[in-house]
Amino acid sequence: MTDTISAVSDVDFRRGMSLLAGAVTIVTTDGPAGRQGFTASAVCSVTDRPPTLLVCVNLGSSVGKVFSENHAVCVNLIQPDQTGLAMLFGGKTPAETRFSAAKWSSGVTGAPVLEGALASFDCTVRDHHDVGTHRMLFCTIHEVRTRSELPGSVYFNRRFHAVSS
Amino acid sequence: MTDTISAVSDVDFRRGMSLLAGAVTIVTTDGPAGRQGFTASAVCSVTDRPPTLLVCVNLGSSVGKVFSENHAVCVNLIQPDQTGLAMLFGGKTPAETRFSAAKWSSGVTGAPVLEGALASFDCTVRDHHDVGTHRMLFCTIHEVRTRSELPGSVYFNRRFHAVSS
Repeated sequence: MTDTISAVSDVDFRRGMSLLAGAVTIVTTDGPAGRQGFTASAVCSVTDRPPTLLVCVNLGSSVGKVFSENHAVCVNLIQPDQTGLAMLFGGKTPAETRFSAAKWSSGVTGAPVLEGALASFDCTVRDHHDVGTHRMLFCTIHEVRTRSELPGSVYFNRRFHAVSS
Repeated sequence: MTDTISAVSDVDFRRGMSLLAGAVTIVTTDGPAGRQGFTASAVCSVTDRPPTLLVCVNLGSSVGKVFSENHAVCVNLIQPDQTGLAMLFGGKTPAETRFSAAKWSSGVTGAPVLEGALASFDCTVRDHHDVGTHRMLFCTIHEVRTRSELPGSVYFNRRFHAVSS
């Protein structure tokens, strides 16, 4: 029965997804394919055995290709003071210009860790699964840094919102 | 090199993940394995070709088994008035008691749609991928209902937060 029901239109999909609030993250990588980063809200917790999160990347983008080739990934949860940086990492600016707008350290995996972030998860990609245009990266977490006294930042209804801690 | 770095502890994983803000959703199903539902924040957008979202379910739970056997799934984004219902669907109460605490309609797939929700995504499971204890359900979206004038509800730092529209 369900095979005969059509999928929703692009417009309905986007309108619905604009209401799915998500943490704002800047996901970074470094390795053989170079340093890169992008702003993502499609990040979620998967399991604690082993400690794993997933990041969804667009395989059709130049950024997605870099993430498919490197092994080290850092998910940086931004705080409200860093929404300008999230805009920059969500646009068309070249990687080196993006990175020059903030301070970074290097995690145990070699991925760039954003200074002043609410939290950073330094990971290696253990597995992946492709769905349509996108690749799910399943990432083992090797190091977590948190500053839990800071407010969070979520994207909801097409704008940023601060969420108190 | 990275294969030799140990993963983080359970305590560090949970502390970090408590800062990953997520929309609060009640995910429901109906079909051969019966009607069931649970509260989830591990839901995210995957791709618009075809329109797809993912839901992460625990295979070790009785709820997870029902979701693995049924085909129809509805992701209901709650609004702040429904946090009590989210607590109920996140606890140990039997399915029928959970469902009797709210009004439901039936989506095109047959999955229960929560009345008064911020948004509902009525889906069928097209594919899945297992990671450790959890299964990612990749769901094609057949119908979207939205009430975009309502505030959203996110879970952050171990409590619910309302987010204005």
